[in-house]
Amino acid sequence: MTTIYMIENMEKIGIYEYRTEVYSLDFRGMMMIPTLLNDMLHAATCHAGERGYGYADMTSRNTTWVLSRIALEITDRKRLSEPILIHTWVESVERIFTYRCFEITTLDGESLGHSRSVWAAIDVDTRRPTSLEAIGLEDWLVQKECPVAPFTKILPAEEQPDIPEAPYKVKYSDLDINGHLNSVKYVEAMLDLFDIEVYRERSISRLEVIYQTEGRYGMELGLFRRQLQPDGFVTSICHQGKSICRAQVAF
Amino acid sequence: MTTIYMIENMEKIGIYEYRTEVYSLDFRGMMMIPTLLNDMLHAATCHAGERGYGYADMTSRNTTWVLSRIALEITDRKRLSEPILIHTWVESVERIFTYRCFEITTLDGESLGHSRSVWAAIDVDTRRPTSLEAIGLEDWLVQKECPVAPFTKILPAEEQPDIPEAPYKVKYSDLDINGHLNSVKYVEAMLDLFDIEVYRERSISRLEVIYQTEGRYGMELGLFRRQLQPDGFVTSICHQGKSICRAQVAF
Repeated sequence: MTTIYMIENMEKIGIYEYRTEVYSLDFRGMMMIPTLLNDMLHAATCHAGERGYGYADMTSRNTTWVLSRIALEITDRKRLSEPILIHTWVESVERIFTYRCFEITTLDGESLGHSRSVWAAIDVDTRRPTSLEAIGLEDWLVQKECPVAPFTKILPAEEQPDIPEAPYKVKYSDLDINGHLNSVKYVEAMLDLFDIEVYRERSISRLEVIYQTEGRYGMELGLFRRQLQPDGFVTSICHQGKSICRAQVAF
Repeated sequence: MTTIYMIENMEKIGIYEYRTEVYSLDFRGMMMIPTLLNDMLHAATCHAGERGYGYADMTSRNTTWVLSRIALEITDRKRLSEPILIHTWVESVERIFTYRCFEITTLDGESLGHSRSVWAAIDVDTRRPTSLEAIGLEDWLVQKECPVAPFTKILPAEEQPDIPEAPYKVKYSDLDINGHLNSVKYVEAMLDLFDIEVYRERSISRLEVIYQTEGRYGMELGLFRRQLQPDGFVTSICHQGKSICRAQVAF
């Protein structure tokens, strides 16, 4: 089924292969979620660049893509450490936001998970969203199933944290080419709020992230975690008492 | 010259292509040294695995490769952000240590830098080095030029630090498959001791690292920096007053 679709939409769906070498796996030999997110951003970058709306194209319009939200659902965590394919396509486009989906599969096309993400093109100088109308994303839309539960309202972890606040200072290695805290580093920092014992026994089944404010070099941040259910948590990254990023983590 | 050599040694030298996507470049659009180290470890892992002494082969002998020292010299930092080739080969083997070299080139084979590294195969349980004699690395040696200055004695940064000690706690995302602080993360943490203004104006021309003790989950570490010359520094990572890793950084 997936395979048929891939062929039909070959030009619209980008398919990229990733192999995580053992030294990049976690202590259980499992792929880390930030590594997968990194590969997904790599696939998105390649897909957009090959179709005329990549980083260079956006720069020429004095804009840059920023990730606003992402939800990732993993159905088979174990096989993520084998070679994988990341399929990515543009699902829809609105005036300010565009929705990009991902499916992660084995090399044989067996599904291991899905993700939906929301992107805006901001003006490099004003950092305000710009209209997506002139980019021509409409020509690239694909109506392929992406079974990820809808985005939710993520409760503030900083209001009833279940562990002490963890300080975090934005460093050189955290910065992306825009000079802001890299999208993957936000997630890495929030997932580090869970003890190694949690990762020894459990795997993340769903992760949802909302990026609210760009983290800048030298910012003194505070990380919070709040437990909502036995297997459900929210986390947040705050700056001067206000969250700049929130996540929901389900094991 | 390089090209001729590559052909002659095709089976002994591994050549791998890497493309750093823009979102993984630093705020100046330059490749970060930890990203390059990561690619080099990836190339080393592939090269060893394809020749019968990779991670799985070593695991079957109850051993694992550990990086002991590495020196990296960059001659053209700017073009590292273009697609690169990483050439890697085994230069020599002693009873306990083996020397692996790297050359980084453009896709046309123009040299951008070289590196020499020292590895040991430790017993998984005792964490002690094992003899390399039975592995058969002798069959894979290549006498290719690797113009990297010799390893040096790295002075203790913790003795006369030029900035305050920076605390660091080993987190889940820092761990490699052996459950220890990932080799690249040590470097990332030490390079974060330099202010963004340093990276705005200067580039690292030589980096040398010695790994002394494995960092473990939850370890409370202290990071130190000491200036030796206008463009020369040493850094160290200490645990309970004793260094577990030292580096020399030249801009």
